[in-house]
Amino acid sequence: MVATHTIDVRTKGQGDVRDLTQDVGRAVATAACHSGLVTVFVNGSTAGITTIEFEPGAVGDLDRAFERIAPRRGEYAHHLRWGDDNGSSHVRAALLGPSLTVPVAGGRLALGTWQQIVLVEFDTGPRERHVIVQVMGDRGDA
Amino acid sequence: MVATHTIDVRTKGQGDVRDLTQDVGRAVATAACHSGLVTVFVNGSTAGITTIEFEPGAVGDLDRAFERIAPRRGEYAHHLRWGDDNGSSHVRAALLGPSLTVPVAGGRLALGTWQQIVLVEFDTGPRERHVIVQVMGDRGDA
Amino acid sequence: MVATHTIDVRTKGQGDVRDLTQDVGRAVATAACHSGLVTVFVNGSTAGITTIEFEPGAVGDLDRAFERIAPRRGEYAHHLRWGDDNGSSHVRAALLGPSLTVPVAGGRLALGTWQQIVLVEFDTGPRERHVIVQVMGDRGDA
Repeated sequence: MVATHTIDVRTKGQGDVRDLTQDVGRAVATAACHSGLVTVFVNGSTAGITTIEFEPGAVGDLDRAFERIAPRRGEYAHHLRWGDDNGSSHVRAALLGPSLTVPVAGGRLALGTWQQIVLVEFDTGPRERHVIVQVMGDRGDA
Repeated sequence: MVATHTIDVRTKGQGDVRDLTQDVGRAVATAACHSGLVTVFVNGSTAGITTIEFEPGAVGDLDRAFERIAPRRGEYAHHLRWGDDNGSSHVRAALLGPSLTVPVAGGRLALGTWQQIVLVEFDTGPRERHVIVQVMGDRGDA
Repeated sequence: MVATHTIDVRTKGQGDVRDLTQDVGRAVATAACHSGLVTVFVNGSTAGITTIEFEPGAVGDLDRAFERIAPRRGEYAHHLRWGDDNGSSHVRAALLGPSLTVPVAGGRLALGTWQQIVLVEFDTGPRERHVIVQVMGDRGDA
C-alpha cells in the first residue's frame, strides 16, 4: 500500500521550525497503515526535515548552531553568482537533508515521547512549503 | 513483507558509539528479505544513527567534531528552560538525524566493507536505547 | 515492486560533487514505478548523499562549510592509527550520511525545480563509487 499526502506550510523565514508530527500521524491514520514506513520530504533546496524536542529552547539552540556552521552574513559564492542572499540557506539545507524516514508499527509512528518531526526553514524570507508525506506498508486485519 | 525488530542497547553517555551492523544483518536474515530496504531508527531526541568505519580513531574524531559544532559546556536555552544539561545533545541529534535507510540486495545489506551502522549516543548520561529495525521488501524464491 | 540499479561514478577526490538526478530518474522510469520511494545509497564510509541546488557556487560553499567543520589538515586519531590522511573524510561522511530517500509520485521524483540529488566525495583522492538506487512501490495501471 502506498499513499501520498502533502502538507502545506507558510513559513516566516530562516530559523522558523514547524512541528509536523500531528499532520504526519494523521496521514498514517488516513492510510490505515498498520506496519510500514513514512517518508517525510521537503521539495526545495533551502529547507530540511529532522526530529527534535519541539520546545523553543532547543529549537533556538539548533538555529544558533547552524549560524556557527554557516553564518547568514558570511561570504558565499552563491551570492556572487546569482545576487541572492541565501547562501547560508543552501549550505544548511544540504547538511541537514530534505528527508526523514520513520517506521510505523502497530498503526503508530515509532517516535519517542519528546521527539517531534519538524520542518526547518533555512531560506532568508517567508516561503510556501509543500511537504510530501508518503506512507508505504501493510494494512492491518481490518 | 514488513518485519519489525527492536535492538536494546544500554549506552554510557555522550560519545558512546555502538556498532549495530550484526544486529541489523540478523534482522534481515530473520525476515528472509531478498531485496528491499532496512530502516534503522532511534526513538529519542538525544541520539542519532549513521554509518562510519567503526574503529576508535574515527569514532573519536567524530565526537571531537560534534564538540566543536555544539560544545557540551556551551550555553543553551534548553538548559535555562528545563534545568537540563543536555542542550548539546539535542543540537547534535537534530543535526545527525534519527534514521538511516540501507538497501538490501541479494539478501544482504548493501554496505561497504569498512562501513558500519552505528548508534551515536549524545545524551550526557547513560541511557536505555530501543533502536527500531524495520525490514520491507520481497522474499526470494524460497 | 523492488528494483535495484547501480550508478558507477569515478570521482576526483575531496570536494567533487556529482549530480545523479538524471540517473536516478532513469532508474524510476525503467522500473515503471508509479508511486513509491527511491533510496539512493553510497556504500563507502568516505562519501555522502544529499540534495543541493547544483551550481558551482552553492557546491563550493558546501565544501567550505565542511572544511570549517572538519578541516582537511586537522589532527585526526584515524591518521595516527592507520597512517591514512582521510580523517576529515570519515567525519564529514558520518555527518552527512550515506543515504537519501525521495518519494515517487505520478511516476516522477518529487524534487523541487532547483533541487538535485548529489554524491559528495569526501575522500582525499579519486575513488570509484558505486551508488545503489533502489526503487520500491507500485506500478501504475499499465
